[in-house]
Amino acid sequence: MAGFTHVEGLSSADVQRLRATYEPLAQSVRELVDATIRSEVDADDVAAAKAHIEAATELLRARQIDGPFGVRITSDGDRMPWGNPAIGIRNAIAPPLRMVRDDDGVMSTDFHLGAAYEGPPGHVHGGIVAMVLDHVLGEVAANDPLTPRFTGTLTIRYLRATPLGDLRAEGWITRTDGIKTFAVGHVRDAAGITAEAEGVFIPPKWARG
Amino acid sequence: MAGFTHVEGLSSADVQRLRATYEPLAQSVRELVDATIRSEVDADDVAAAKAHIEAATELLRARQIDGPFGVRITSDGDRMPWGNPAIGIRNAIAPPLRMVRDDDGVMSTDFHLGAAYEGPPGHVHGGIVAMVLDHVLGEVAANDPLTPRFTGTLTIRYLRATPLGDLRAEGWITRTDGIKTFAVGHVRDAAGITAEAEGVFIPPKWARG
Repeated sequence: MAGFTHVEGLSSADVQRLRATYEPLAQSVRELVDATIRSEVDADDVAAAKAHIEAATELLRARQIDGPFGVRITSDGDRMPWGNPAIGIRNAIAPPLRMVRDDDGVMSTDFHLGAAYEGPPGHVHGGIVAMVLDHVLGEVAANDPLTPRFTGTLTIRYLRATPLGDLRAEGWITRTDGIKTFAVGHVRDAAGITAEAEGVFIPPKWARG
Repeated sequence: MAGFTHVEGLSSADVQRLRATYEPLAQSVRELVDATIRSEVDADDVAAAKAHIEAATELLRARQIDGPFGVRITSDGDRMPWGNPAIGIRNAIAPPLRMVRDDDGVMSTDFHLGAAYEGPPGHVHGGIVAMVLDHVLGEVAANDPLTPRFTGTLTIRYLRATPLGDLRAEGWITRTDGIKTFAVGHVRDAAGITAEAEGVFIPPKWARG
């Protein structure tokens, strides 16, 4: 398996410039994903919108990388997981989650999920809840951001349906045993916890150095 | 919790017409999501693409439903889970999965995951694997398509990283116990199984009649 892509010649200022270019683009695509689900306009207006979308895609594809984005590490040490479907600022599928680690080692993220994440009417798809929890637990398990941890096992208990809207997820490490890191966490809304998770995470062979 | 939205006055022909209008639109947005991640064009071209995207969104938002899409059931009995992030034909986040139930009750889906689903470089995000498995197991547990099952618990064992590309997922019921349905399944690539899952599914109170 390929590891990180090490990108030479990109300064932190270059990374900020690229971020300023592509983050608003992806945000506009997120709005479009939502509008595509919720629109009630007629076939002619849909056709006109589709023509605009295809024009945008053609402009963006004029020069593109050959394959997925990967996880890029610059020579300045900037980590760019920008294509990631949970946290990727360039990925319109990602809410994106913005992860914060506090002084006690708790990883948390406050986020908002709208129409694009709906499973049961008005509520978050159970698989999206799983994706958020997998990401938060995996990220807290990777204490060193340059040493990834892959999920070994993940168990989720759904206490009640998670409503669409403003949510928070938290995760922390409970213990380590050799290369295994054990983590737990939950998703909550304003009324309390909706789903709990526990997982075991291990570094991939290529990152065990 | 709100249940299904029952839509009156929509014939199966109307549903087909709406599908013919909105399915290609969402497919064009999927292409755009991919192009947004992989593009290397400069800031001017990104700005031009963004203007097209905003024009498309404005056209689509001229008339839209007030909230998420829900799960619509027509008076003809057509089920329209079109906003769903796993199978929704109107949701650009969804691959979308196309589910097939065989004569033995095995639910399966062949699908392709590209750059938008990448976690580890070249491989599927573990949370996306979880989302696919949650959906396949939940769908097979809901024998009657009009009686939803919510996930109670879900456990996933990741045997190895799942490569991006062509994949298949399968799920089947192992037993039932009162309102609980137990299901298992897996995701596989051409070389074999990459992740296994087992889950317990229960109908929400509003669907227990």
